[in-house]
Amino acid sequence: MSIRIGILGYGNLSRGVESAIAQNSDLELAAVFTRRDPASVKVRTAGVPVLAESELLDWKDKIDVLVLGGGSATDLPVQTPKYAEFFNVIDSFDTHARIGEHFANVDAAAKKGGHVAIISVGWDPGMFSLMRMIGDAVLPEGKHYTFWGRGVSQGHSDAIRRIEGVEDARQYTVPVESAVEKVRAGENPEFTTRQMHTRECFVVAKEGADKARIEKEIKEMPNYFADYDTTVHFITKEELQRDHAGLPHGGFVIRSGVSGMEKEHKHIIEYSLKLDSNPEFTGSVLAAYARAAFRLASEGASGCKTVFDIAPAYLSAKSAEELRGKLL
Amino acid sequence: MSIRIGILGYGNLSRGVESAIAQNSDLELAAVFTRRDPASVKVRTAGVPVLAESELLDWKDKIDVLVLGGGSATDLPVQTPKYAEFFNVIDSFDTHARIGEHFANVDAAAKKGGHVAIISVGWDPGMFSLMRMIGDAVLPEGKHYTFWGRGVSQGHSDAIRRIEGVEDARQYTVPVESAVEKVRAGENPEFTTRQMHTRECFVVAKEGADKARIEKEIKEMPNYFADYDTTVHFITKEELQRDHAGLPHGGFVIRSGVSGMEKEHKHIIEYSLKLDSNPEFTGSVLAAYARAAFRLASEGASGCKTVFDIAPAYLSAKSAEELRGKLL
Repeated sequence: MSIRIGILGYGNLSRGVESAIAQNSDLELAAVFTRRDPASVKVRTAGVPVLAESELLDWKDKIDVLVLGGGSATDLPVQTPKYAEFFNVIDSFDTHARIGEHFANVDAAAKKGGHVAIISVGWDPGMFSLMRMIGDAVLPEGKHYTFWGRGVSQGHSDAIRRIEGVEDARQYTVPVESAVEKVRAGENPEFTTRQMHTRECFVVAKEGADKARIEKEIKEMPNYFADYDTTVHFITKEELQRDHAGLPHGGFVIRSGVSGMEKEHKHIIEYSLKLDSNPEFTGSVLAAYARAAFRLASEGASGCKTVFDIAPAYLSAKSAEELRGKLL
Repeated sequence: MSIRIGILGYGNLSRGVESAIAQNSDLELAAVFTRRDPASVKVRTAGVPVLAESELLDWKDKIDVLVLGGGSATDLPVQTPKYAEFFNVIDSFDTHARIGEHFANVDAAAKKGGHVAIISVGWDPGMFSLMRMIGDAVLPEGKHYTFWGRGVSQGHSDAIRRIEGVEDARQYTVPVESAVEKVRAGENPEFTTRQMHTRECFVVAKEGADKARIEKEIKEMPNYFADYDTTVHFITKEELQRDHAGLPHGGFVIRSGVSGMEKEHKHIIEYSLKLDSNPEFTGSVLAAYARAAFRLASEGASGCKTVFDIAPAYLSAKSAEELRGKLL
């Protein structure tokens, strides 16, 4: 019998979860829930109903794991604790500063309902967190570095779109190659924000808009751009659609550490991702952790967990014997 | 209170475990056990006793985890099941074809004694296995590739040393760069053994030995060299000591897979290791899993496990809150 997955929301990430489910024969998309008019949402998996979020609790016995496809700013802080009481849930909460609070809220709800919740799943937080953590445990005397890109940051693209006179925009986060090389060489450098990443913006201006002002507003925007070397290219709408339609991303986590009684040996661990589609890869990770949540709950576990708490074997559809035989 | 570690054997790997323990304040080296005359073995950690293996069982209550530093050919198949009945144990068993049998033997012993055993720990098997497994779970439609090197293979170096007329030798396993590039480009190629790695040998011949015959014997040696493009360099003993004294190694695991309803997006996950000292890095991994074995046993777990069965948080000396706060 397959594991029945429900998805709340139907944006890019939820569609990534949907396509991941289609690649895993032990997972089945049971239903998609939306705050929009369900009749306006067309899912791509044949025979899957689209329902209003208000009907979700009626599906308590028809869904094994609920994947929350919403955003970290306003959706997940409310939705994950709310639904963890009634379902096993997975989210991709990525507001680092609020993870402690979110964990506590979700943990209380999941324990109350006897369900398993896994939060902050994806690639960062998620796979990259695992690499930082395992690297830190294996090489305790060392440093870790996380570089993102080259890839589209949806948050930064949105920030540009909010500027007056901007019709559309795409922002790429780009790691500084010379910084990466220093880390790979085991130099353990200290970096400022500016030294690790640059930001490249492709902007479609509205007709008659003041491009110089837009460029200045982008480059001086606090938090998003002010601390980075930022390049702004004005392009046409057609160019944006032709050259920047995808959502590629990636990056790498490097752990640089030493061993030996005299700390005389250096070691470099590097984990890198090159992703054609950020939301589809993230969705694939969420699907694997949905499997894990179902299994843990079947064993009687409950409460909130992160990727640190999940034994890797739970992620795989393969049996323990098969994993030992083929992948160990 | 620290976790008290015993080590059986005092070769390269055991010394790597010893230096790793020195880097982890929650781990303590309690004693080293040897089949040699204990008086002939000098360990580098002050105050640590060296004892005969025959005394090991007297230390049942003074050791929390026993790390087995022996080899997979003859030591571990006997030692791990033997001691798993009396101690929590860690080994680095790496004979892939016999892992099923070894697992069953160790599992029975560990369950009988109520202990936790973690087998096949290190980087391959070990970290590389984790990467193959997680990649397979997250991108189920894809292929994985494991490349080793550039690094010293001790098994292949030993095989050369057994040839008549050879005084000493060092063998490097070298990944074929063009093969790696094809994989990184997402081409999902099929490779023969010869297409993935070459073997480079540095050999010190005894005086008067027939070098042409030695080179021929190396290149035609079944399993070890016959299936590879092998280069043989004859060098002096001084050159070997000067240029090839270390035991560097490394390699990479690449998972190449697709996502999307039409499988239209490619993703490349790459994990790479560049290690100045293979035995010290392996020892560092063993030390982290020793911590995990102790904690699992403290929670009442028993039986044989592999890296697939261990939730990552168990590897770290940091608390769950600290991990979530700093590394998630």
